[in-house]
Amino acid sequence: MQFDVVYTRRPELRSPVLVEGLPGIGHVGKIAAMHLIRELRAKKFARLYSATFPPHVVIRKSGMIEEMKNEFYYWEGEERDIIFVVGNTQSTSPEGQYLLCEKILDIAQELGAEEMYTLGGLGVGRPVDSPRVFGAVNHPRYIPPLEERGVIVKRDGAGQIIGVSGMLLSQGKRRRIYGACLMGETSGFYVDPNSARAVLEVLVSLLGVEVSMERLARRVKDAARRVEEAAKLERKMMEDMGILRREPTDDEMRYIG
Amino acid sequence: MQFDVVYTRRPELRSPVLVEGLPGIGHVGKIAAMHLIRELRAKKFARLYSATFPPHVVIRKSGMIEEMKNEFYYWEGEERDIIFVVGNTQSTSPEGQYLLCEKILDIAQELGAEEMYTLGGLGVGRPVDSPRVFGAVNHPRYIPPLEERGVIVKRDGAGQIIGVSGMLLSQGKRRRIYGACLMGETSGFYVDPNSARAVLEVLVSLLGVEVSMERLARRVKDAARRVEEAAKLERKMMEDMGILRREPTDDEMRYIG
Amino acid sequence: MQFDVVYTRRPELRSPVLVEGLPGIGHVGKIAAMHLIRELRAKKFARLYSATFPPHVVIRKSGMIEEMKNEFYYWEGEERDIIFVVGNTQSTSPEGQYLLCEKILDIAQELGAEEMYTLGGLGVGRPVDSPRVFGAVNHPRYIPPLEERGVIVKRDGAGQIIGVSGMLLSQGKRRRIYGACLMGETSGFYVDPNSARAVLEVLVSLLGVEVSMERLARRVKDAARRVEEAAKLERKMMEDMGILRREPTDDEMRYIG
Amino acid sequence: MQFDVVYTRRPELRSPVLVEGLPGIGHVGKIAAMHLIRELRAKKFARLYSATFPPHVVIRKSGMIEEMKNEFYYWEGEERDIIFVVGNTQSTSPEGQYLLCEKILDIAQELGAEEMYTLGGLGVGRPVDSPRVFGAVNHPRYIPPLEERGVIVKRDGAGQIIGVSGMLLSQGKRRRIYGACLMGETSGFYVDPNSARAVLEVLVSLLGVEVSMERLARRVKDAARRVEEAAKLERKMMEDMGILRREPTDDEMRYIG
Repeated sequence: MQFDVVYTRRPELRSPVLVEGLPGIGHVGKIAAMHLIRELRAKKFARLYSATFPPHVVIRKSGMIEEMKNEFYYWEGEERDIIFVVGNTQSTSPEGQYLLCEKILDIAQELGAEEMYTLGGLGVGRPVDSPRVFGAVNHPRYIPPLEERGVIVKRDGAGQIIGVSGMLLSQGKRRRIYGACLMGETSGFYVDPNSARAVLEVLVSLLGVEVSMERLARRVKDAARRVEEAAKLERKMMEDMGILRREPTDDEMRYIG
Repeated sequence: MQFDVVYTRRPELRSPVLVEGLPGIGHVGKIAAMHLIRELRAKKFARLYSATFPPHVVIRKSGMIEEMKNEFYYWEGEERDIIFVVGNTQSTSPEGQYLLCEKILDIAQELGAEEMYTLGGLGVGRPVDSPRVFGAVNHPRYIPPLEERGVIVKRDGAGQIIGVSGMLLSQGKRRRIYGACLMGETSGFYVDPNSARAVLEVLVSLLGVEVSMERLARRVKDAARRVEEAAKLERKMMEDMGILRREPTDDEMRYIG
Repeated sequence: MQFDVVYTRRPELRSPVLVEGLPGIGHVGKIAAMHLIRELRAKKFARLYSATFPPHVVIRKSGMIEEMKNEFYYWEGEERDIIFVVGNTQSTSPEGQYLLCEKILDIAQELGAEEMYTLGGLGVGRPVDSPRVFGAVNHPRYIPPLEERGVIVKRDGAGQIIGVSGMLLSQGKRRRIYGACLMGETSGFYVDPNSARAVLEVLVSLLGVEVSMERLARRVKDAARRVEEAAKLERKMMEDMGILRREPTDDEMRYIG
Repeated sequence: MQFDVVYTRRPELRSPVLVEGLPGIGHVGKIAAMHLIRELRAKKFARLYSATFPPHVVIRKSGMIEEMKNEFYYWEGEERDIIFVVGNTQSTSPEGQYLLCEKILDIAQELGAEEMYTLGGLGVGRPVDSPRVFGAVNHPRYIPPLEERGVIVKRDGAGQIIGVSGMLLSQGKRRRIYGACLMGETSGFYVDPNSARAVLEVLVSLLGVEVSMERLARRVKDAARRVEEAAKLERKMMEDMGILRREPTDDEMRYIG
């Protein structure tokens, strides 16, 4: 199983926090991470390609193809730095997912990461007006700071986190990279920037970074409109061009921010 | 296909018996093995992680994530020792299952194991009040001791054992590790501690270990109540949180014993 | 992808013919090959195990488990020798099938094989009283001898051979091991010893071996009765024991010959 | 994952263009590439076999089996040369597809290729009389020449290209092999030589090769008739022989040109 990492820069960071926002339920984690990347003007430093990614490419509106990939950004803060991993896909097989997480952790660990936040959505199957944020941790010391910020950590029963957001916590724990997964409540039926905002509010507080919440609110509003447009265009395109879509893509992302 | 074994102790054992109780139909094998581990106060000595395990993690009630893993315990008896392999998952692919069994047998063989009992459920698709125990062996010498204990070994037609419980017998045979699979009759629809008790009664007799059958009965009763609670909580959680569950987890295990 | 070959003998053969009869449609190829192995009193010389085989084991009526495996037999004829490959399974994945064929061809080629016949069924979806035999070849020189024996080689359109019987011809061709696939017409719904007899009649003529056709006819009659019994027992067992069957097994084979 | 490349010639080429026409929607790309190969009398120079191809073989009308393979042709033009990759299959898994593209690019790059055109169909789910040609590129400099030839490059929304035609653009881009994917509008329900003609008209103009468009039109007409015959024969064969067909084959190709 091939993984290719192409570095375009080699940053030197001070015990950075890893923030993961790969596509998942409602694209909540991806939207939150992408917003933060833009707000902080984080810089891209590496791309990851893999034979375990889906066997297709995306065609952008311009006609340019977009390869399936994960991308790494870094940001140098006053007190501590951040590494972001985002992209347009996760792997297509259990083994692929496991090895992808190992690769991401290798890259983060090489840069000194000892902490992480993974971001995702928690689909509830019905519209959500005021999304709550749920949390799960791989070390108990992360529970108090999450609860202080209103994140629901303790639960009545057990649950699951599917994909990279959960596996990074699990595989990270074995390398002593500790942290939490923040999951924004979302319907699960469409891209949800509102849920992403709820997650982002918790995240910026945890990271101690300052971002304009006003700009964030505006972006969400803009995004909501654009997502709607995108959905309309997409339906039209589907009718017009009949392009076979085996998996949901994250085209909508292109209309945000 | 990656398998990582992390040893926390290095026991020295006298030709131990391997007892397998990984999750399967009705969690019969897992409940039986876990009960015995607790009764005997067996000690954990290794964890096994694998890229072939399902690509998710479990969230416990506490908010702590639980990684997909297999765990090894040992117990030093007066006459002979036992190695247990339990956990919250089997592998997700044929190759994964095969290589997992090879790995388990490597670990057991390194510690001197020449004998094994694998535990599982046999789903009959209807409620079972007085579960019978069925057996299959990889050496004929195991048939008489099973039949003496009321296990049904000979059958009218042929059948199958799916997963690790069967494959360990098959792959073990090639290494001259002989033994039997004990399967408790169960509906196949829910976690069945009653079937586990039937299997356990045969197993303790075969192993010649002494465990309080009273405590066992109490545990089953307790477990039954807790499983019911767990099922209720789980349904509630599913409604509340809509967590997507691609595969049955073994949350219920946390309520037992 | 692991393949283990265990040799129990090391025969020396004179440019043997490889005859393949692994399980497939109607078990036609397997029944034909097994009949011939018994008639000729061919000797077993190797077993092949693989991580690509299905992740289960068969339980025999005796309670003994039967591992998933392929088996190799040889027979020393007056003029030329035969290698047989039979077993209770093919691989579970495209890569597994390809590598299995490579392994079988390695074993055959090491023993000097330059020719092969692969045996199978051709399902027509309706009862077949007088099964015809269809053929496909990987070298044109095999067409005349097949047609002389009433095999239908030329066809109106194109078709396919799925699995090892076809792939051995394809991968064998690249090693200059030439031959034909013989396919007995069969319903595709049940084990079909009658179709196997049709295939076998062509095969013995091609191989120039002499076997009692009377005994063969008797066997088919016996087999038909036993297959019916087996089917009945199996249904009963399924009802009684509810054993989950993800794939058709070849239990019925145990009742034949 | 095994890939075997067998070279039958070792051409020396002047920065050739890679043209891909593997089977896909409506066999549009394959028909277009095969027509051009025949028109130009391009020469075969290599075959590629893989364990990732489907686990079956095709039986031709003659009774000869046809292995699953990809084939490479070259053509020496007055100004520049062409490499063609065609065949009867793509890979069966994401990893297989990715590695197949790497292999194709290795072969093309070794011969000096720095440019490519991949050909395919774009299924619209309804009959198409005057097929339009859609395009996607991995470098913006390919957009103007495509648009000059009436290809629709810019679109209202985003889309996808599934399989080798898209992945070659994506993986090629990382090697600085640039080019475009040309997709002929087609119903997606049957083999479509008319759509292939539309694609071919654009392609020959882009490549600057001269081919008889008259012969092309005649061929399409012939092909249409033959495809119809083939479909009829195939239906008959299916009824007569009941050959199980897990995947569409490209038998119809044999009737074209």
